Amino acid sequence: MNTFGRIFRLTSFGESHGNAIGGVIDGIPAGEVIDIETIQSELNRRRPGQSSLVSQRNEQDKVELLSGIFEGKTLGTPIGFIIRNCDHHSDDYEMLKDAFRPSHADYTYTAKYGIRDHRGGGRASARETACRIVAGAIAKQILLRLGIHIDAYTSQIGSIRLLSSYSDLDLSLTESSPVRCPDSTISRQMTELIEQIKSVGDTIGGVITCVIKNVPAGLGNPVFGKLQSRLADAMMSINAAKGFDYGVGFDCAAMRGSEMNDSFTYRNGEIHTTTNHSGGIQGGISNGEDIIMRIAFKPVATLMQDIETIDSKGDKIILPAKGRHDACVVPRAVPIVEAMAAMVILDNILLSKIDRL
Amino acid sequence: MNTFGRIFRLTSFGESHGNAIGGVIDGIPAGEVIDIETIQSELNRRRPGQSSLVSQRNEQDKVELLSGIFEGKTLGTPIGFIIRNCDHHSDDYEMLKDAFRPSHADYTYTAKYGIRDHRGGGRASARETACRIVAGAIAKQILLRLGIHIDAYTSQIGSIRLLSSYSDLDLSLTESSPVRCPDSTISRQMTELIEQIKSVGDTIGGVITCVIKNVPAGLGNPVFGKLQSRLADAMMSINAAKGFDYGVGFDCAAMRGSEMNDSFTYRNGEIHTTTNHSGGIQGGISNGEDIIMRIAFKPVATLMQDIETIDSKGDKIILPAKGRHDACVVPRAVPIVEAMAAMVILDNILLSKIDRL
Amino acid sequence: MNTFGRIFRLTSFGESHGNAIGGVIDGIPAGEVIDIETIQSELNRRRPGQSSLVSQRNEQDKVELLSGIFEGKTLGTPIGFIIRNCDHHSDDYEMLKDAFRPSHADYTYTAKYGIRDHRGGGRASARETACRIVAGAIAKQILLRLGIHIDAYTSQIGSIRLLSSYSDLDLSLTESSPVRCPDSTISRQMTELIEQIKSVGDTIGGVITCVIKNVPAGLGNPVFGKLQSRLADAMMSINAAKGFDYGVGFDCAAMRGSEMNDSFTYRNGEIHTTTNHSGGIQGGISNGEDIIMRIAFKPVATLMQDIETIDSKGDKIILPAKGRHDACVVPRAVPIVEAMAAMVILDNILLSKIDRL
Amino acid sequence: MNTFGRIFRLTSFGESHGNAIGGVIDGIPAGEVIDIETIQSELNRRRPGQSSLVSQRNEQDKVELLSGIFEGKTLGTPIGFIIRNCDHHSDDYEMLKDAFRPSHADYTYTAKYGIRDHRGGGRASARETACRIVAGAIAKQILLRLGIHIDAYTSQIGSIRLLSSYSDLDLSLTESSPVRCPDSTISRQMTELIEQIKSVGDTIGGVITCVIKNVPAGLGNPVFGKLQSRLADAMMSINAAKGFDYGVGFDCAAMRGSEMNDSFTYRNGEIHTTTNHSGGIQGGISNGEDIIMRIAFKPVATLMQDIETIDSKGDKIILPAKGRHDACVVPRAVPIVEAMAAMVILDNILLSKIDRL
Repeated sequence: MNTFGRIFRLTSFGESHGNAIGGVIDGIPAGEVIDIETIQSELNRRRPGQSSLVSQRNEQDKVELLSGIFEGKTLGTPIGFIIRNCDHHSDDYEMLKDAFRPSHADYTYTAKYGIRDHRGGGRASARETACRIVAGAIAKQILLRLGIHIDAYTSQIGSIRLLSSYSDLDLSLTESSPVRCPDSTISRQMTELIEQIKSVGDTIGGVITCVIKNVPAGLGNPVFGKLQSRLADAMMSINAAKGFDYGVGFDCAAMRGSEMNDSFTYRNGEIHTTTNHSGGIQGGISNGEDIIMRIAFKPVATLMQDIETIDSKGDKIILPAKGRHDACVVPRAVPIVEAMAAMVILDNILLSKIDRL
Repeated sequence: MNTFGRIFRLTSFGESHGNAIGGVIDGIPAGEVIDIETIQSELNRRRPGQSSLVSQRNEQDKVELLSGIFEGKTLGTPIGFIIRNCDHHSDDYEMLKDAFRPSHADYTYTAKYGIRDHRGGGRASARETACRIVAGAIAKQILLRLGIHIDAYTSQIGSIRLLSSYSDLDLSLTESSPVRCPDSTISRQMTELIEQIKSVGDTIGGVITCVIKNVPAGLGNPVFGKLQSRLADAMMSINAAKGFDYGVGFDCAAMRGSEMNDSFTYRNGEIHTTTNHSGGIQGGISNGEDIIMRIAFKPVATLMQDIETIDSKGDKIILPAKGRHDACVVPRAVPIVEAMAAMVILDNILLSKIDRL
Repeated sequence: MNTFGRIFRLTSFGESHGNAIGGVIDGIPAGEVIDIETIQSELNRRRPGQSSLVSQRNEQDKVELLSGIFEGKTLGTPIGFIIRNCDHHSDDYEMLKDAFRPSHADYTYTAKYGIRDHRGGGRASARETACRIVAGAIAKQILLRLGIHIDAYTSQIGSIRLLSSYSDLDLSLTESSPVRCPDSTISRQMTELIEQIKSVGDTIGGVITCVIKNVPAGLGNPVFGKLQSRLADAMMSINAAKGFDYGVGFDCAAMRGSEMNDSFTYRNGEIHTTTNHSGGIQGGISNGEDIIMRIAFKPVATLMQDIETIDSKGDKIILPAKGRHDACVVPRAVPIVEAMAAMVILDNILLSKIDRL
Repeated sequence: MNTFGRIFRLTSFGESHGNAIGGVIDGIPAGEVIDIETIQSELNRRRPGQSSLVSQRNEQDKVELLSGIFEGKTLGTPIGFIIRNCDHHSDDYEMLKDAFRPSHADYTYTAKYGIRDHRGGGRASARETACRIVAGAIAKQILLRLGIHIDAYTSQIGSIRLLSSYSDLDLSLTESSPVRCPDSTISRQMTELIEQIKSVGDTIGGVITCVIKNVPAGLGNPVFGKLQSRLADAMMSINAAKGFDYGVGFDCAAMRGSEMNDSFTYRNGEIHTTTNHSGGIQGGISNGEDIIMRIAFKPVATLMQDIETIDSKGDKIILPAKGRHDACVVPRAVPIVEAMAAMVILDNILLSKIDRL
């Protein structure tokens, strides 16, 4: 089951050390202008080797679009695309052939399939998320034309939290921060923390906040396929994600109804709420306010330390520190969160067209 | 889109004040013994009017199974079922016809469909979750035969938290607590809090923790349809859910890889982990350890207080306090969480049968 | 897998001798006026006991709608419905418990599920098609409002064929014919043939032709989900259907391209074809011309004759002639063909709304 | 909607004159040995330029597998693949930019999408079927290991029919016939007919018969998703297919139940039928007998003659004879029929694994 979405759908494929990764994007409305450079620049945001903070694996992540676009416009037919895997160091992984690394997918893949591609994580590699970036970059272009903006940023690394509300931040500053945190003071603290963690060969977790503005009211579904369900499904499918909430999220547990409820008001001929504790969704359906959500990411399992674990026979083995890995994946996950959000919103915009004849 | 699941699938229907709610459960394996009394007793767990803490609406929630079972066993054909709506006070809702109640689905349904059944929440009513209980009770019986146990309990109401790990609790005590909290001291505090909140006409949120034991390794998917994605989708489809996490959840953000990683060990001829920060899932696939997750619920939006809001024309209106509502839905949501978990796990067990020929 | 359709979807349930059959119709656009009497009168068209030609089983087939309609209009939420099974003669079927009747589903159901409800065919009974009539009658009402007409009629019984093109027939005469053939001479011949076949305890096959007028150009899909694929899938899901073709159908094999091709012409500001050998579909997508198709039905397997067959142990048994069965199901299948066609067309109209933003 | 199948699924992409066509094959069971040469040789069977009878377009149709196979075995992860488009003569098609060719998809694509790639048929080109060959060749290898054989052959070209039953033919002779007809006399007649048709710049239709042997009893579904529905859907999705039937097919209309019914018998410890009018499927589910079906193909719309038609403005235009096209596509469609059949059967074998726990 490698397909995501109901109308706007990405079907992805690819192991990290096979010939290529790629996918098919189906359900794209016809006649949409797509800028290919923009897709590539979104891919570059996810790419390793962007700063000293992240993995030095030097892949080009160059996307090749194979179909579905003619003279710059979508045909309504699917867009196939591939991204070649070019920086293979497959030999680096020979010792992993029978190893079950802690908190990796080595054991679970073997339990499920009885076979796995042990090189660089295979299908479990975060490299696969590049395919989501491609689909998301296409969705984002269409959404932007509809006035919908999606902005994610790092709001926590370790115990360093950005406490300001998104509405008090200048989100245009996110990209200039090496950790993708729009507050320069917090950004500096996060950067220092990651560097310190890296220096001891360890890794650290974090939280990404994502804001979606100008979503029309009426997207989602009453029971199954609630808009928050689709977003949670999307976000929890990202590697290392351990938690999702929206609006006030887990804080709602300690709140009273009289605090939590968002009062309606009529403003400039439109219905709005005076607060947005609901995070832009009520009863599974968008209400036109900003959609706001958080996704928690665990620290990367691969440490730059020798690791004692077992192999498939149950024997103890020691894996020497090796490879090129991020001390913190959160900054690189920011564009992935945006891509998944874009896919969900566009899918639901398309679905909303059939609510009435 | 009123269908949940890929193989084991519930398609539900029904408004709270229509003739009936009900559904079709498809993909049930053939030849399974189903005890109908057990389904009814699960329904009774969700039913209002169980204690002074919850809504006094006196529905019978009597399920009628219409097909798919013959001489006590499943036929492999779908089980249709209905639950009649019998305690109608539709007139109570006349004043809601044009009202958009704060943090309800009145406005969003109207935005989506241009029409809504305003009586008692219509499709947005939590009454719909009774259908999930039916499907979940069938799934649970099959899972139990496979040795899989699902237990949910209330772990937070307002700011009262149950801090003990599930492994230190006697989960058999959950049902005897009026708030479904297995720790009697905390249970009493929660009960008092809800009564106090109720006395002032307000409502309060909370958190449910759910544990699934004896899940075989190998359930889930590598990329999309990760087991945590399916669980998150399921849980976020429950009314009032605002957040989901699993394993250490949001706490992972502040953890280091060296703390977070679960070491493998070989015990009694089986592979296990020494800790379970991952919450039983690695790389989207179950690893055989207990699956542990939390779901945050917001306080119910309907207060026993006059509420100032607007109607569909944008005019201010005041809705008098009325109706029969819970001051805290969390205890009644416990069996719903279990039901959704059971559906996801059974669906993935069936799907895992096709991983290899 | 008891769901049909992608957006407008029927999920059906029910064995012929269980408590009820029924279903859930999802994806109905909101705000559509639905006349319930019209649904019931469509059901009456399928009902046994309409004339001396068909089975005397006296069921009422009374549909009860349970949800999804409020004050006469669709809510956008699913319509659940049930039809009670009231004319049980379950004892009649006791002897069938272990029998595998020739050309019935007794053996194949047992092979698949290891269990079956032997009473009256269980899930294999054509009674299940009543659920399709309900969904189809709703679809037809919506289509009619869009100007789309669906008319099916009996075009062959045994070797008696109606050779006239549908365009030379008065299709309003179909319902007044006991065999649903709009040509009174052929109708009389067919009626006589069925009566003669019936008198010897045998059964006979036939062909139904179906015409859909005023379908907009642009419905369907280029590769998978071609409009003809969806129609073929739909028609071949009807009990006893053995063949499907459209346009000139199987006759195309003997034709040359120069004969087959439909020339385009510009008429009253619209693009049309001068002939319609394509049957209204080109490249998987409707072209605005009438859609025309044929479905072949085999003779009913249940004869009014003693039948020698085997039981589940492989022993020879003789089943005495018994029960109430049609000598020819084709006339009663006419409304089923129309219902399935209506579901496919409405589904594709809804899907076509998302071809472009 | 460019996905076919429920578990074993092909998602295809590609226009005939874009960069590449290709697809993603998902749901392949893990651990299966796949021979890549066999895939390529199946592709070669479909390729143009195989004999003087078919189009001289000299494509290589070289498939490149990109993922999902490791050390010769399937990983359980999806297989992505591409086939480059190398023999572009895009300029040949400039005159088709605004033309609506008779019985082509030019008009219907424009009606649906408002845009089309006019070069060589774009997405409507039969070139797309190469992707089905790839997926089918993988399915066939797995089926063969299960003992299931799929053989299709040309049984009619124009009015020349092969009247023998498949059981009286030596199907190993099919590939040595230029028209893929296993009877050498009929093959010669068909060849002569096609050459004659070609000499006058015309085209001709035909019928393909397909036999599937050793299908286990129990595949398919009782109501929707009947095995014949899935096969019909599959076959009608092939370009130029106009009709589908199975078993005695359309001939059943003239048969009596007493002739049609297949008697059961017990042979070598297995249940069989003495005749096979049902074509291996009863009640939507395979009964273990050979599955036999026929698919009718219309003559290719592109003639080697000047064609008078209209353009998108409704003006009359004349398209000069040009391009490289088959006078009869039926022989080349034989491997496509086999591929689609293989996909349906494997999908249903996988689905049957979840009928019981």
